[in-house]
Amino acid sequence: MGLVVQKYGGSSVADAEGIKRVAKRIVEAKKNGHQVVVVVSAMGDTTDELIDLAEQVSPMPAGREFDMLLTAGERISMALLAMAIKNLGHEAQSFTGSQAGVITDSVHNKARIIDVTPGRIRTALDEGNIAIVAGFQGVSQDKKDITTLGRGGSDTTAVALAAALDAEVCEIYTDVDGVFTADPRVVKKAKKIDWISFEDMLELAASGSKVLLHRCVEYARRYNIPIHVRSSFSGLQGTWVSNEPTGDKVEQAIISGVAHDTSEAKITVVGVPDKPGEAAAIFRAVADAEINIDMIVQNVSAASTGLTDISFTLPKAEGRKAIDALEKAKGDIGFDSLRYDDQIGKISLVGAGMKTNPGVTADFFRALSDAGVNIELISTSEIRISVVTRADDVNEAVRAVHSAFGLDSDSDEAVVYGGTGR
Amino acid sequence: MGLVVQKYGGSSVADAEGIKRVAKRIVEAKKNGHQVVVVVSAMGDTTDELIDLAEQVSPMPAGREFDMLLTAGERISMALLAMAIKNLGHEAQSFTGSQAGVITDSVHNKARIIDVTPGRIRTALDEGNIAIVAGFQGVSQDKKDITTLGRGGSDTTAVALAAALDAEVCEIYTDVDGVFTADPRVVKKAKKIDWISFEDMLELAASGSKVLLHRCVEYARRYNIPIHVRSSFSGLQGTWVSNEPTGDKVEQAIISGVAHDTSEAKITVVGVPDKPGEAAAIFRAVADAEINIDMIVQNVSAASTGLTDISFTLPKAEGRKAIDALEKAKGDIGFDSLRYDDQIGKISLVGAGMKTNPGVTADFFRALSDAGVNIELISTSEIRISVVTRADDVNEAVRAVHSAFGLDSDSDEAVVYGGTGR
Repeated sequence: MGLVVQKYGGSSVADAEGIKRVAKRIVEAKKNGHQVVVVVSAMGDTTDELIDLAEQVSPMPAGREFDMLLTAGERISMALLAMAIKNLGHEAQSFTGSQAGVITDSVHNKARIIDVTPGRIRTALDEGNIAIVAGFQGVSQDKKDITTLGRGGSDTTAVALAAALDAEVCEIYTDVDGVFTADPRVVKKAKKIDWISFEDMLELAASGSKVLLHRCVEYARRYNIPIHVRSSFSGLQGTWVSNEPTGDKVEQAIISGVAHDTSEAKITVVGVPDKPGEAAAIFRAVADAEINIDMIVQNVSAASTGLTDISFTLPKAEGRKAIDALEKAKGDIGFDSLRYDDQIGKISLVGAGMKTNPGVTADFFRALSDAGVNIELISTSEIRISVVTRADDVNEAVRAVHSAFGLDSDSDEAVVYGGTGR
Repeated sequence: MGLVVQKYGGSSVADAEGIKRVAKRIVEAKKNGHQVVVVVSAMGDTTDELIDLAEQVSPMPAGREFDMLLTAGERISMALLAMAIKNLGHEAQSFTGSQAGVITDSVHNKARIIDVTPGRIRTALDEGNIAIVAGFQGVSQDKKDITTLGRGGSDTTAVALAAALDAEVCEIYTDVDGVFTADPRVVKKAKKIDWISFEDMLELAASGSKVLLHRCVEYARRYNIPIHVRSSFSGLQGTWVSNEPTGDKVEQAIISGVAHDTSEAKITVVGVPDKPGEAAAIFRAVADAEINIDMIVQNVSAASTGLTDISFTLPKAEGRKAIDALEKAKGDIGFDSLRYDDQIGKISLVGAGMKTNPGVTADFFRALSDAGVNIELISTSEIRISVVTRADDVNEAVRAVHSAFGLDSDSDEAVVYGGTGR
């Protein structure tokens, strides 16, 4: 029995009852002989409430103070959780990110972990205690200021601690039963995945799956820490994410799942002179505005005009900024006009089996075509195909693809949501 | 223009509006050329809400985790206050007790400050920033754990920082206009005191006045830091507490004020053998139970029985514990019975002028007698007389004494409460 890191999200500790339920589960793991380190998020809506307060006193809250504010949320949940565990007769100590040795860079609101020095955690464990650690936060290496890792950062805290402590598994407790072959809200027959490789999980996370964040999976892959995503509302096995399949029954599927994303918009730069350096100028302007773009497509140039169109997708939230940046650079780049379209959606098919099954791409397009879905952009990786369609077509497209690749479960019963339905 | 420490209590920063109002006042002081260090409490009822949460998960929350929990409150208010100041165009940085160098012992929930090493505060000030510090909290010297100083601890934080930074004044902002000659809720004609000595303020605080805590005044006296208690809702001068009178108009009054306290109970140990060591045995039993007692009176022994009664007062909250401790020691001590009475009140007259005006004591008892108030216990110091009466008589007694010593103001208008009435 080795060391286990467990991470509980805000919906699992939304109120006193939730905290007591989670405490019982933690004590269970301890009784089973594990050394237990718990990473906890802020209770329920605490973070949103704090953000709301900040906006009331200042329209643009500053980075350092904003981090100081938000980290109060985990401080509350971790202290309460430690108390609840003690109340069950077991010893527990809570630690802030700083006390736990989570060292980050100085980029407030979205700091990156650069080192983990969990000396105090190790001592607490050696003394037989359960260690509770605040997720989402750290301390900056140079200034010793409190930092936060950005939304979803608690998962990263958990994986980073698991790596630093050489844990045998990092359990991510959430309000769903695991990672599914598609979003169960869209595809009723979506199945829980028993095992998925780091690579496929990375592609799913990059393509719109919300269960695990890309950064967290990346960290786990780098340090080879198996992740077990499971429900805090049931005792069921969830989804294992690791290098090698675990358990007897598990074998690698050709296709892991279908992800979709309707949070992106498309910008088309119309009438770009078809000569070297034009695309570079466009994407330099966008990159200088610190906007991450996703897919890019350049149309074939019309021979008669010598002009072409370039389209790319980006988060809707950054649409305004991108348009402004391009308008400002219009004189230098030399294009006719910009078109902005936020009524798009992206559907992605992910699976390592694609590499060795050349028919997958054809089947994918066939399924979309049969469902009457029009494709606007295409992009691929070795283990993923993504297409952009009209936003209205996304749900239908996801269901069609899911069914075409034999991912549908036999019964609707397979999809079980947790208690809060959040 | 020197360095000023300002402390704002929870009612001054109860909501976003309060925080913005306080931010303006802080910026004002900065504009006037001061270096400004601000100590802030948790917003409004935050601490009570956190205590409530703790009680929901554990009937007896443990010290270390309880401190971790409660300190989240100041973290929220100080970050918001720093944001609000920045929004007014001034630089501000917030610091936890630990970051501010507030070093304490390890007694959780009521730690004592043993050192203040405000290096980061000094740096922030030197860089032209306003420093915002979390009140009520510190970090333990040996274990580096978060500690709290107990209720009212933010005032102590402010005075301790003022001492460590050699501030010219420690301003305590509250929701009343200053220290009054009596509780204005009881005595409508109570007057605001312009200046009061540390000694008289210590006696008032020990006798039931709630505006400043005894520990905070003691600290200020030891390091000779003038305290200015004033309202955060007005620009009026409040009460100066210092060694020497300040300002032209201020001269030392014979009597500073009348304090009262109805939070105590009286225990009478009946039928104690009148022989050496009996009283010692009684108070050893009480002290071993960690109960602080206030007044003690031993009746004259009845010659016929050789037995006497011993009465003492103590906080009501500790009554049960004291009775239990005495019952347990009954065999060793040898008394007949115990009487418990929580319907008592204490009235105290405080003033350094007592030392040189021998008529004060007589006038005090005359005033009580004229008001028909019966006296049960008496205790005195060089600058204070206290009596215990029936609880029902307390308000009447306070008014009578206040009037008899010429403390009544000419009009009711002098008593001004702040906006929230809290």
